[in-house]
Amino acid sequence: MSTYTAPLSDIRFVLYDLLDVPSHFERLGHVDATRDLLDAVLEEAARFTQTVLAPLNETGDRIGCSFDKATGAVTTPPGFRQAYRQFVEGGWTGLVSPVEFGGQGLPYTAGVPLKEMIDAANLAWGNFPLLSHGATDALLNHGEDWQREVFLRPLVDGTWTGTMCLTEPHCGTDLGLLKTRATPNDDGSHAISGTKIFITAGEHDMTENIVHLVLARLPDAPAGSRGISLFVVPKFKVARDGTMGGANAVRCGSIEHKMGIHGSATCVLNFDGAQGYLVGQPHKGLAAMFTMMNTARLGVGVQGLGLSDRAYQNALRYSRERLQSRSLSGAKFPDKPADPIIVQPDVRRMLLTCKALIEGGRAMSYHAGLLVDIAERAPSEQERKQADALVGFMTPIVKACLTEWGVECTYHALQCFGGHGYIAEHGMEQLARDARITTLYEGTTGIQALDLLGRKVMQQQGAGLQLLLPMIETFCNEQSGNEAVAEFIGPLREKIAQWQQLTLQIGQRAVANAEEVGAAAYDYLMFSGYVALAWWWARSVAAAEGSAQSASFKSGKRETAKFYFARILPRTLTHAAAIASAASTLTALDEAAFDA
Amino acid sequence: MSTYTAPLSDIRFVLYDLLDVPSHFERLGHVDATRDLLDAVLEEAARFTQTVLAPLNETGDRIGCSFDKATGAVTTPPGFRQAYRQFVEGGWTGLVSPVEFGGQGLPYTAGVPLKEMIDAANLAWGNFPLLSHGATDALLNHGEDWQREVFLRPLVDGTWTGTMCLTEPHCGTDLGLLKTRATPNDDGSHAISGTKIFITAGEHDMTENIVHLVLARLPDAPAGSRGISLFVVPKFKVARDGTMGGANAVRCGSIEHKMGIHGSATCVLNFDGAQGYLVGQPHKGLAAMFTMMNTARLGVGVQGLGLSDRAYQNALRYSRERLQSRSLSGAKFPDKPADPIIVQPDVRRMLLTCKALIEGGRAMSYHAGLLVDIAERAPSEQERKQADALVGFMTPIVKACLTEWGVECTYHALQCFGGHGYIAEHGMEQLARDARITTLYEGTTGIQALDLLGRKVMQQQGAGLQLLLPMIETFCNEQSGNEAVAEFIGPLREKIAQWQQLTLQIGQRAVANAEEVGAAAYDYLMFSGYVALAWWWARSVAAAEGSAQSASFKSGKRETAKFYFARILPRTLTHAAAIASAASTLTALDEAAFDA
Repeated sequence: MSTYTAPLSDIRFVLYDLLDVPSHFERLGHVDATRDLLDAVLEEAARFTQTVLAPLNETGDRIGCSFDKATGAVTTPPGFRQAYRQFVEGGWTGLVSPVEFGGQGLPYTAGVPLKEMIDAANLAWGNFPLLSHGATDALLNHGEDWQREVFLRPLVDGTWTGTMCLTEPHCGTDLGLLKTRATPNDDGSHAISGTKIFITAGEHDMTENIVHLVLARLPDAPAGSRGISLFVVPKFKVARDGTMGGANAVRCGSIEHKMGIHGSATCVLNFDGAQGYLVGQPHKGLAAMFTMMNTARLGVGVQGLGLSDRAYQNALRYSRERLQSRSLSGAKFPDKPADPIIVQPDVRRMLLTCKALIEGGRAMSYHAGLLVDIAERAPSEQERKQADALVGFMTPIVKACLTEWGVECTYHALQCFGGHGYIAEHGMEQLARDARITTLYEGTTGIQALDLLGRKVMQQQGAGLQLLLPMIETFCNEQSGNEAVAEFIGPLREKIAQWQQLTLQIGQRAVANAEEVGAAAYDYLMFSGYVALAWWWARSVAAAEGSAQSASFKSGKRETAKFYFARILPRTLTHAAAIASAASTLTALDEAAFDA
Repeated sequence: MSTYTAPLSDIRFVLYDLLDVPSHFERLGHVDATRDLLDAVLEEAARFTQTVLAPLNETGDRIGCSFDKATGAVTTPPGFRQAYRQFVEGGWTGLVSPVEFGGQGLPYTAGVPLKEMIDAANLAWGNFPLLSHGATDALLNHGEDWQREVFLRPLVDGTWTGTMCLTEPHCGTDLGLLKTRATPNDDGSHAISGTKIFITAGEHDMTENIVHLVLARLPDAPAGSRGISLFVVPKFKVARDGTMGGANAVRCGSIEHKMGIHGSATCVLNFDGAQGYLVGQPHKGLAAMFTMMNTARLGVGVQGLGLSDRAYQNALRYSRERLQSRSLSGAKFPDKPADPIIVQPDVRRMLLTCKALIEGGRAMSYHAGLLVDIAERAPSEQERKQADALVGFMTPIVKACLTEWGVECTYHALQCFGGHGYIAEHGMEQLARDARITTLYEGTTGIQALDLLGRKVMQQQGAGLQLLLPMIETFCNEQSGNEAVAEFIGPLREKIAQWQQLTLQIGQRAVANAEEVGAAAYDYLMFSGYVALAWWWARSVAAAEGSAQSASFKSGKRETAKFYFARILPRTLTHAAAIASAASTLTALDEAAFDA
């Protein structure tokens, strides 16, 4: 079985030494979110996730959720329900929710480490409370007063959970195709009919009610994505005054058998004239969903981070314990029958790849979290707008890169175990299977790439990038005299110049051929991720040097940064070459000639 | 459920247009192995694997093997036993085995496409007959006459199967640590005692006997890998005259629960004074095992190829059928509700990556197969020796690259399905799980890398490479006037020069620091694989142009080659940069500072 220890020292390093979040929180009016409070939250989150959630991870996978066809009920794995109850009792569900609805009102950023720990401890379990945040955000930003009154308090205190019902059998990415209908009832509510699939936590036994946020078409809806409206549809009916009614006409038809996250219920939901209420304006449902989606996507990125870290921790332990062969430069532990495999450079390559992607990814994603808070509460509108553009730019990068790296890190970590990694009892293969969902849901990597290059760069004239590049440049200028990071400044300057240049190049080619954007998108996304990470590694070294961290911690940052610049950042060479090649290398082959 | 169609047209292209195997076979004295005969074998193999094996792939995964603790018996999934019986009746088990022991005596190369089809159709099932080949080879090359008489015929005709018993709980890579003991009995046999793990097909219900080839230590054995001997230990005792005896003292203790290949029994075998016979010289067991291992490793490479191809075929079908969104350059199928996703450049990127790695990998691995035949039967000793050096050089490349690409291709293919790829019913996630074993067993990728750079390059003064590079150079010279491949010649020349240069560079650095070999090994291996594949792609285009293949087939080769050179070959840039960086980027970090 794999184990998990919350990486509190690196989390503290990122929050305090690198991002200095307490001073940001103060500036943003989050006066309660002091370092003392954050520390207490971190320690309690570590305790809860390590002792309550992590031990349930293996049983959750082995036993999974079960479905009763006769009743449509879903039973969660043993212990999941009790753990959820403890989570609710600990007040965790409302950690970053508004105080006026019963939440603790902490900044969004304070929820990110909690989420990382939950995902590392038990990704499948984490999906149950996760979706409530999307529902909360949608109602908070777009709901009517009575909807907020009635639905938000139980969502925030965890008595109820929420879902996001978007996907249908014939449409996922292209929501314009969706068919679920909403017919007006006489009382102002709507009757919702249709089939939704892939609904995470769509049915379960943890709470007394479930609040579905459902995309559907009104009778007069225009075709396509401009004719989609958002509805709130509770599992048990709720009147406008909050009175609970009977069962609504929504039923779970089945749950999916999946590669991983067996403890997370992925439901087919059949709506058969279910009572729902319009949220926000008619036909504006997609926009309402998209506001929720940015933070949901950041959240999925953090899932990749959490899984990577758990996998790495176990691979590191195994590599220190497993005695096999000798170091090529002579026995390192001559008194033992063989050296631990961590003396092997190739094992170190895999471990360092994980360490570099995890710690760099932590810095990058926590910073994206901080931008969410700044975008919401910065004193000046300009700062709010800039932070919003920047987080919009970083969101597809964080989502796609941290999940792709999650697949990669769980791969390396399993590989460190050799054949033992393939055996269920070590728990490494579960992490690899669980990680595999993260590059798919909330928009595949390809969709993130189009969001970044097509939407955030081409349509918005690179607003986010034009804010980010000067930040990196400023860092380079400020640190030019700092010996600790001197070796990284040149390569970083070179890469940001190349980033700028590649962006212009794609823009010019896209004028002549719209396919150039789709053809370059994936490689542009990954290029961006690796350059952004290089910045975070250089910043991490600078921050560590200037901090009170131990010599060992500092050397960990310095040597990992060197490794990153020498062996990971050169992946940008491949991506740059792919971007530079014409779209025709992808589009020329006739569709019929793809067969062997 | 995923489907499978044997890619006969590309297999024929590789065998006939690209490698011209019939003329090689004639030259090597395999006069019966004519094109007509090979065609008949290919078609029958396609029929058998498509109609008998492929439909059992999903049940094999879902039901898996089961183990009876009371009796130690293993029951294979429904249909596996009957399929094996048909396989035996079809004479497939002895296809490439010597005629004198009942085989059909076809060249090794003729077995490679069969193996590809079996692995694509049903990897788990394929592991049962697979291991018999290793046992056959070991006995053929190292066994006494009576051992060959008694054991080979039933192994060749499939009445019995074989195993290779190497790994023990505390040793896999480092066999020098193994503890299984062999004590001489009075009758010249030995009593074998110890525990072996990860024994593929170690116990099952398909045949009346199982022949275990077991590594163990004699009482007077020197420590380490020079004290290991090889023994043949049948499940049911067999006397020297072939008389069958009772059950031997070997028992399956359990089977592993694994990430994939659930239909393949991975056994713990407990030997408790089991009767065994020494094969070959005392203390020379490891060398005997290694001769078997080269072809076993090529075989695992072909497993990666087969899985990649099945995954690709299904992703291609899905990408043609799935209607979602519109092409960025305007609707391609305006009469449909949306365009098929294959119009999206990023979907094409994933499909073309698969196509390039699969078809190139097929050419490379079939060529390695041909080298096995040449090494065995070429008229001149020099040619045999050269072929042997070349196949020794190519084996770790084929094993590691084709399995890493298997992981990658099953990843891309699953990704083409979006969220549906994660659901068991589509069968894509099984292929991804099954593929994951291939980079682990028969030596991990890291071990292949050390075999290539440490053993085949450094210890043997690059004998294989010094044969391969002139072959590529000759190709470049010969094709310099051929317009069809002109664009590939320059990049290819550049890459082989760089290959040479990097090899020298590592050699020089290794003199000062032995760790440089381990630090460069993985990237050197992958660099080598991508350059070798570039050669095979250029050769494929040249061969296709000069052939009677259809225009569509030719354009498939040409456009895929262009894609390969533009978007895959640049991966060598990253690997070259990693090789160029010093070993210290991996070794400098103190072991204690790996923690976050």
